Amino acid sequence: MLARPLIERKRDGGRISASEWRRLMNAYAAGNIPDYQMAALSMAIYFRGLDRDETGALTDAMLHSGATLDLSHLKQPRIDKHSTGGVGDKVSLILAPLVASLGVTVPMMSGRGLGHTGGTLDKLESIPGFRTALTLPETVRQLEAIGCALIGQTGDIAPADRRLYALRDATATVESIPLIAASIMSKKLAEGLTGLVLDVKVGSGAFLPELDRGLELARTMIDLGTDHGCPVIALLTAMDRPLGRACGNSLEVEECIMAMRGEGPPDLMRVTYALGAEMLLLAGVVRDRDDARRRMEVAISSGSALAYFQRIIEAQGGDAGVIDDAGLLPEAPECELFVAPRGGVVARIDPRAVGHGIIALGGGRTRVEDVVDPAVGFVITARPGDVVRAGEPLATIYARDEAGVAVGMRALGEAIVIADEGEPPLPLISHRVTESGVEIYNDG
Amino acid sequence: MLARPLIERKRDGGRISASEWRRLMNAYAAGNIPDYQMAALSMAIYFRGLDRDETGALTDAMLHSGATLDLSHLKQPRIDKHSTGGVGDKVSLILAPLVASLGVTVPMMSGRGLGHTGGTLDKLESIPGFRTALTLPETVRQLEAIGCALIGQTGDIAPADRRLYALRDATATVESIPLIAASIMSKKLAEGLTGLVLDVKVGSGAFLPELDRGLELARTMIDLGTDHGCPVIALLTAMDRPLGRACGNSLEVEECIMAMRGEGPPDLMRVTYALGAEMLLLAGVVRDRDDARRRMEVAISSGSALAYFQRIIEAQGGDAGVIDDAGLLPEAPECELFVAPRGGVVARIDPRAVGHGIIALGGGRTRVEDVVDPAVGFVITARPGDVVRAGEPLATIYARDEAGVAVGMRALGEAIVIADEGEPPLPLISHRVTESGVEIYNDG
Repeated sequence: MLARPLIERKRDGGRISASEWRRLMNAYAAGNIPDYQMAALSMAIYFRGLDRDETGALTDAMLHSGATLDLSHLKQPRIDKHSTGGVGDKVSLILAPLVASLGVTVPMMSGRGLGHTGGTLDKLESIPGFRTALTLPETVRQLEAIGCALIGQTGDIAPADRRLYALRDATATVESIPLIAASIMSKKLAEGLTGLVLDVKVGSGAFLPELDRGLELARTMIDLGTDHGCPVIALLTAMDRPLGRACGNSLEVEECIMAMRGEGPPDLMRVTYALGAEMLLLAGVVRDRDDARRRMEVAISSGSALAYFQRIIEAQGGDAGVIDDAGLLPEAPECELFVAPRGGVVARIDPRAVGHGIIALGGGRTRVEDVVDPAVGFVITARPGDVVRAGEPLATIYARDEAGVAVGMRALGEAIVIADEGEPPLPLISHRVTESGVEIYNDG
Repeated sequence: MLARPLIERKRDGGRISASEWRRLMNAYAAGNIPDYQMAALSMAIYFRGLDRDETGALTDAMLHSGATLDLSHLKQPRIDKHSTGGVGDKVSLILAPLVASLGVTVPMMSGRGLGHTGGTLDKLESIPGFRTALTLPETVRQLEAIGCALIGQTGDIAPADRRLYALRDATATVESIPLIAASIMSKKLAEGLTGLVLDVKVGSGAFLPELDRGLELARTMIDLGTDHGCPVIALLTAMDRPLGRACGNSLEVEECIMAMRGEGPPDLMRVTYALGAEMLLLAGVVRDRDDARRRMEVAISSGSALAYFQRIIEAQGGDAGVIDDAGLLPEAPECELFVAPRGGVVARIDPRAVGHGIIALGGGRTRVEDVVDPAVGFVITARPGDVVRAGEPLATIYARDEAGVAVGMRALGEAIVIADEGEPPLPLISHRVTESGVEIYNDG
């Protein structure tokens, strides 16, 4: 009966103390608090919020409900990047090897796709043989050996968060800023980082579409980092359209390999470089943003970033042949062009409609236990603002069969809006948030 | 995955339709909706409320999740009384035989004590042999035979409500007016009533202490009755002090028997007559309130109410000898006077402190599965406003052992506040609420 008075107090707008959070989350992780009490508490938090101290105490409690990576013996700075999730957001796959190739340890723990968004783990697992389920000792050994590991949340990292996250998804309590922030930060702090860069998505395809909510989430996570001795910097980036062209697991891996060859789409490269510069600055391995940018460009043009990706794939059991032969990635049997149904301006490419289209093709999840078809998806070459003629190709659909092609056609027909006039898109990177405040972003 | 979008909609202030409530509650009663989803929904309802149509649809859905009493073949009007719960509230035990003796069928379904309040079933079960767990066919037969049955909520009545009520208790979502109203009315409507009288408690010992919340609860239940063709009238009565003198199961039964002999405490009798008059008026068996009052007084003075109680006890397997020999009721081994620790005015007798004292003595529950000691409790002869001298007896403690006596002393020391000046108590019966509005109560 520990939980009931805490639920009542939070319901009535009161505070839960650090020691109460610790006992509660330890009991929850041990199976001694029923899910229905945590569900009621989560809904009360949705309405009442948590203050900075409470959010920190919840984060601590979830962090210490399980094991953490002790990487203090490593000499290199340890920096990770986390995105709040979007459609076509494959930045992690480029950024991790790119930044690691420049002398930074990147212990990157990622998630799976859920809802309309894709997940880094699903993308990586479209590489034949690639293992994301490394144990903690395996992860430490790989970080010692090559300075980068791309892994999933193992069972021993923040088990209270794992259980709570699944529960929140089933009880419509995901969209709470303190719960989102505590969930992300409990996992990130378990990685033993010396710094963290956040990509907070805003716009219709983000989990929190409104700018002010995105800023609040950024500030909440920055505060949590500050209070735990881990500097955090956030960029707010646009998710009112997909990022890059490829949307779908193996299609995105292929686009990442192209990007590391210097052939990435401009929006994807700009976001990747902007986040990479913040990581390199936090790591203290570059003088300034110009220096960071130059060194990243050299790492790409020299092939060293791609070579690093190859080492990671090999270390995690994947077929590194995919780097030279994309034909080794799963390929969809059917592919067909999607053409403009009318002439006009591409007013909008709705990321949620694209994401739901991928799910409808079998390439995403509606439940955690769903199996993902890695080959299906879209490559959307049209961009918002493009002037198009009727019948002009805008995208390619990759599907398992003819029925899938029809599903993809319908999804893109809904997602890609052609009108007489364009709509102003969000700035690709709008704000930079640090401990000292918010500034309008300028990568100039 | 039926429940999740409904939780989300309610969380965001939207409505749940009648057909959605029906599917949801049927699935919940069948075990196909997990408790954690209903817990999150209940907390969202706590914050967002339910409108009149939604409250009605939820009530219907819970009502039709199980069996109902079909009493339409009975010629007599069928009236029940329901109290929102208090300390020393033994009115039902007097009222049911009293009103039944005057030609009204009383199918009274009661609950057990929980929290600081007592429960009618626990009181009845202190009569040796008394069975409250009648089946529906047994209940119908007894109503046909003698016009009154005093029963508990059987497993087949409103099972969705049963399950939800236990969940709400564990998740701090009890104090929601639409959920309270739907829970009460789903059970009362299952009794096949032609009218219902509510005793809505207000004051510090009530579940909803504030007058405006009590009025809102009354209006919500009256609306539910109206929408289901069952007229409902509510009286708001004081629960800033215990009702009557006896608090504790067998002690209250003894006080009820005394009351039916014409020796009841004045506050208990006034509330009983007021509620009884409303029942008789709803039944249409009396001309007006004066007529009702006269007929109830005759039923008491002639012994016919007590004779009726005897028939009910016999019909439900109890030892009717208790009526003539209170020594057949469970008796506490230890009893000791509680005396005034100082002279002054009795400023307050806090019902919650009294109720928690009974629980501490073993006479109440903190969990549904707790076993109740029927013999323990208090008889508090002091009333708020009494001028007392130091050392004057104010109450008697009935306990299992010496340790219990000490527990009882501490509880009464906290409950009975003696000060230099009195505090104005709430009016015993403050308001009468009907479909047409609220009036200040006047039993004239």
